[in-house]
Amino acid sequence: MKLITFSREGISQRVGAIFNEKVIDLHASYRALLASKGKIRAQQIADAFIPADMNGFLQGGKESMEPAKQAVDYALNNKSADGFRLVYELNEVKVEAAVPSPGKIICVGHNYREHILEMKRELPPYPVVFAKFANTVIGPQDDIPFYPISEQLDYEAEFAFVVGKRARNVSQEDALDYVAGYTIVNDVTYRDLQRRTLQWLQGKTVEGSAPMGPWLVTSDELQDPSGLEVVLTVNGEERQRSNTANLVFSVQYLVEFLSNLMTLEPGDVILTGTPGGVGVARDPQVFLKDGDVVKIEIDKIGTLENRVASVKEAAEVK
Amino acid sequence: MKLITFSREGISQRVGAIFNEKVIDLHASYRALLASKGKIRAQQIADAFIPADMNGFLQGGKESMEPAKQAVDYALNNKSADGFRLVYELNEVKVEAAVPSPGKIICVGHNYREHILEMKRELPPYPVVFAKFANTVIGPQDDIPFYPISEQLDYEAEFAFVVGKRARNVSQEDALDYVAGYTIVNDVTYRDLQRRTLQWLQGKTVEGSAPMGPWLVTSDELQDPSGLEVVLTVNGEERQRSNTANLVFSVQYLVEFLSNLMTLEPGDVILTGTPGGVGVARDPQVFLKDGDVVKIEIDKIGTLENRVASVKEAAEVK
Repeated sequence: MKLITFSREGISQRVGAIFNEKVIDLHASYRALLASKGKIRAQQIADAFIPADMNGFLQGGKESMEPAKQAVDYALNNKSADGFRLVYELNEVKVEAAVPSPGKIICVGHNYREHILEMKRELPPYPVVFAKFANTVIGPQDDIPFYPISEQLDYEAEFAFVVGKRARNVSQEDALDYVAGYTIVNDVTYRDLQRRTLQWLQGKTVEGSAPMGPWLVTSDELQDPSGLEVVLTVNGEERQRSNTANLVFSVQYLVEFLSNLMTLEPGDVILTGTPGGVGVARDPQVFLKDGDVVKIEIDKIGTLENRVASVKEAAEVK
Repeated sequence: MKLITFSREGISQRVGAIFNEKVIDLHASYRALLASKGKIRAQQIADAFIPADMNGFLQGGKESMEPAKQAVDYALNNKSADGFRLVYELNEVKVEAAVPSPGKIICVGHNYREHILEMKRELPPYPVVFAKFANTVIGPQDDIPFYPISEQLDYEAEFAFVVGKRARNVSQEDALDYVAGYTIVNDVTYRDLQRRTLQWLQGKTVEGSAPMGPWLVTSDELQDPSGLEVVLTVNGEERQRSNTANLVFSVQYLVEFLSNLMTLEPGDVILTGTPGGVGVARDPQVFLKDGDVVKIEIDKIGTLENRVASVKEAAEVK
């Protein structure tokens, strides 16, 4: 299944499934299915099993995925119920980041084998991990804001996985049971801010610097996270290309490694690293500018495309 | 006011105020106050203005603080209402971390002037900032778990402030309006994990590595965050001592600096750095071991004391 978070004028963010270019409102559809069977308290049962927000939905785990599939079947045969629409055309909604508010965003650095070797570095014994906060997350239809605090805005194509079940000390063998699915994140980085101290956080967690999308492909549909081609272009020009087969630390390894340090929770998003070819490492260096279109394609997931938009004034408090 | 989060057998976490060694349940007291005035929907009004969880309460800002003060007055004159207790003795409850689930925990490194100068380093032009995640937070009555993944567990006494109002591009002049209050955090660090890669996160965000407490002293009570003595002892032996007057980057500066990068939200916790004297920097080095008692005292706030407890087995999934 392809899961999204979507919004629409007058509708706050809700979990949807994409099916044949249509968006199915999972919570509304499950409620309608229950009501059609004469269930009492259909609303409350739907709230319990298919919360309308992604973190809540993911917390339900497999208990939520089964009703979600029933909801999809129902909605495809009943486009509305009691005046509520269950199905939208994709172009009628705004697609938001699949996980708009992750509890943790954990990023892995230096993880593509061929890039490390071409830089004549040794393969690292441990993953380098660092953080972004949830204030960075924007959706596939949002512009990447470029704040006037830097002149070195850069892209990083990343294959990302989303945790689907609370995980602590999980082995590599069991790891994929804890993965809800996969998506694409652009780990947008302000290079000068990243490098002005030893710790990268301040260049990594600037507002709006984690475009995510276009959707979450669930791990029952994408069963093997290795062997997926990752390509990033800027204004159509290829800048990064690799394959998740080149990851030094696989998804399974990262689940084990990270869950040995901390409890991973449903909705946590882990970025697995970026291939060679980022702007700061090119000769000559090249950074993003207003109007640039950054597009990341990953096999079996899709395309995440965002435009860079300079923010002239410092942003106001929302 | 001194705000806590407390729990009790049969009562999940709730926001309380400490007054003369007593704990006042703010939500229950405000509901009782409203009911005593014959207000209809007292429960719903109390839910709206004084949510029982700290993040919700802090989101209310000044609109929640006023009713909270009325609730305290009411509770001190009416210890129970309709069979619900409004007031507990401090020893009847478990005091939890004041903010059990911060959206962000932002840490500042190298921020005590005298320690930087004694190390013959230059004062840094920018704060070093790094992250912990909310999985680290434990309360003042919890043990510090020492997981068998390291032999270098270390302490860091930190004066911390908690954001009380959404903040973006806030000037130093206005900064303290955005601070809900102050507390103590021990930035417990697994030094070998911190240092095995360039990025510190993996040694900083191990489960249970951020004891916080004993409470949150609100910024109307503690109006000036400078000039507070910070002392840390291990088993009664002094290891760290400094004063927040020595901070290179003040609370006001950090609000401006951080809110220029990202939106700060109510409940975000910012750790302002640690003085000299951490175990890894001593000669000879000395690390924490099972049974050690780490105590941090900060003027006008109080004392945070936690015992280190080795965890023999890898922790299970909760």
